[in-house]
Amino acid sequence: MASTLRKKHKTFGGYTGYYEHESESTKTKMNFSVFVPELKAGQKAPVVYFLAGLTCTEENFMTKAGAQTYAADLGLILVTCDTSPRGLNIPGIKDSWDFGEGAGFYVNATHAPWSTNFKMYDYVLSELPKIIETDFPAQKGRRSIMGHSMGGHGALVIGFRNAKEFASVSAFSPINSPTRCPWGEKALSHYLGPKSPAWDQYDASLLLEKATHKLPVLIDQGDGDEFLEKQLKPELLVAAAKKADYPIKLRMQHGYDHSYYFISSFIKEHLEFHARFLK
Amino acid sequence: MASTLRKKHKTFGGYTGYYEHESESTKTKMNFSVFVPELKAGQKAPVVYFLAGLTCTEENFMTKAGAQTYAADLGLILVTCDTSPRGLNIPGIKDSWDFGEGAGFYVNATHAPWSTNFKMYDYVLSELPKIIETDFPAQKGRRSIMGHSMGGHGALVIGFRNAKEFASVSAFSPINSPTRCPWGEKALSHYLGPKSPAWDQYDASLLLEKATHKLPVLIDQGDGDEFLEKQLKPELLVAAAKKADYPIKLRMQHGYDHSYYFISSFIKEHLEFHARFLK
Repeated sequence: MASTLRKKHKTFGGYTGYYEHESESTKTKMNFSVFVPELKAGQKAPVVYFLAGLTCTEENFMTKAGAQTYAADLGLILVTCDTSPRGLNIPGIKDSWDFGEGAGFYVNATHAPWSTNFKMYDYVLSELPKIIETDFPAQKGRRSIMGHSMGGHGALVIGFRNAKEFASVSAFSPINSPTRCPWGEKALSHYLGPKSPAWDQYDASLLLEKATHKLPVLIDQGDGDEFLEKQLKPELLVAAAKKADYPIKLRMQHGYDHSYYFISSFIKEHLEFHARFLK
Repeated sequence: MASTLRKKHKTFGGYTGYYEHESESTKTKMNFSVFVPELKAGQKAPVVYFLAGLTCTEENFMTKAGAQTYAADLGLILVTCDTSPRGLNIPGIKDSWDFGEGAGFYVNATHAPWSTNFKMYDYVLSELPKIIETDFPAQKGRRSIMGHSMGGHGALVIGFRNAKEFASVSAFSPINSPTRCPWGEKALSHYLGPKSPAWDQYDASLLLEKATHKLPVLIDQGDGDEFLEKQLKPELLVAAAKKADYPIKLRMQHGYDHSYYFISSFIKEHLEFHARFLK
C-alpha cells in the first residue's frame, strides 16, 4: 500500500476510509478519503473524484454530502482529498481563509515560496489516481471528476484540460472564471505571480472557449448563493460555451445557497450523471 | 413565533432551519433544528424527533445523518435539539465529555446544583413539541421519537413512559440500561443523587419490563461498536422484552461502529418504519 489507513467506518455495506501518505507532488503528508461500495471478490468499480472548496478537508464531503447512499446503489467509488498541503512553515500560509492552507486552488504554483509544495493540480490529476488504482478496487482509467466552489473550479479545469482522461465532469457552485473574480485573482497572483497568460490555464471559462474534445458537463448553481455575483459568475461560462458551441448543462436552482445542504439535495443526480458515462 | 430563526438552508425542496428560544424547562436559551419537507399550502406533516448523543448539538444529525433525502420522500418533519442547556456557570459543568454540558441524559435532574436547569426530559416531552406544533406545519400529536446512544436511551425512556403519545420509537446504539453502565451511573448519580428507585424511571430496560401499552420498537446496533459491551448492553433490553413479552425488533448489524456512518446507513429504514405508523 502506498497509503496508510487512519480510520475506517463501515458505510452502506461498503466502507468510508481515511488515509494519509507522503506526497511526491507536495513533498508533504497528504490526506484523502475513499468510499468503496460493497463489491464481490475481485470486482472493480469506476471512480468519481470530488474536489472540495475553500477551508475544507478530506472529511467535509464524506460526512455532509450524503453521497454514499447513492454511490452504493450505483456501484461507484468516491474519492476526495484535502484542499492543500498543510503544516508548512511558509509566511502568510495561515493568514487567510481564502488563500494558503485549505485553499490550494488545484494549481501547480510557479511562484516562490508556494512553488515547492503547492502542486495540487499534479496531485489530483496524476498522483492521487495512481494511489487509488493501486490500493483500492478501482477500474483503471474509468474516472469522472466533480467539485464544489473552489473545487468546482478545480474539477472543470482539470476536466477541460484532460478531457480524454475523464468520462464526465460536474460541479456545484463553481468559481467559473478565477482570472476575473477576487478569490481567484488573490490566489493566482500568489501562486502564479502577476497576471499573465499562465493564469488562463486555470480559468474554466477561458479553457472551454478553446476546448476541442467535448466532455459531458453538468453544473448546479443556487440562485440564493451569497457568492454568486461577485465570485462565481456562471454567466462567463455560459457565454464561453455558447461561443465554443460546447453543450454544457448549467441549472440555476431556485432558493439554494452555497452550502452542503445544496450539494446533498442534488448529489444523487450528479452521481447518476457520472454513472451513465462511466458504465 | 416562540422561536427565533438563526439560519435556514433550502434542502431537498424544503428547508433545514436552526432556531433558538428561551426555555421554560431549562431557564436558558435552547437551540433546536427542524427539517420541513416541501408541503402544499396549508398542508401539515407528522414529526419525528431525533435525540442526539453525548457531546452533540442540534447540528450533528442534520448535517451528518443524511436523513433529509428520505424525510422529503416520506413527507416527514424532522426535529432535533441540543443535548443540554449551555452557558451555565455550574462547577464541573465542562469538566467531562460524558456529563454536564452536552450530556443532559434526557432526565429531569432533582439534585443540586443540576436541578434548576437540567430538565431535558420535560423539554423534549412537552416544551419542544408545543413550539414545533405552534411555529411549524406539524400535525398535532402525530409524532414518533428516535435517537442515538445517549439519545437512543432518551428516545426509549420517553417513548416507554409515554407510549400513548408516540406512534413508534427507534434507536441506534442506545444505552439500554443506564442504571447498570458507567456512563449512566456517573450521570444519574449527579442528576438524581445516590442510587435509588428514582433512577429506574430513566432505565429503558427496567421500564420495558413493566410496560403496559406496547409501542412499535426498532433498534439497530453495530457489532463493531466500541461501547457495546461496557456501556450499551442490548442484552439487558432483550431480556426485559422477553420477560415482558414485548415484541421489540433489535437488529445486530455486522461490522458497523458507533458513528454517524452507521446511522446514515440505516436511517432510511428507521424513517420508513416511523412513517408506517404515523400515516
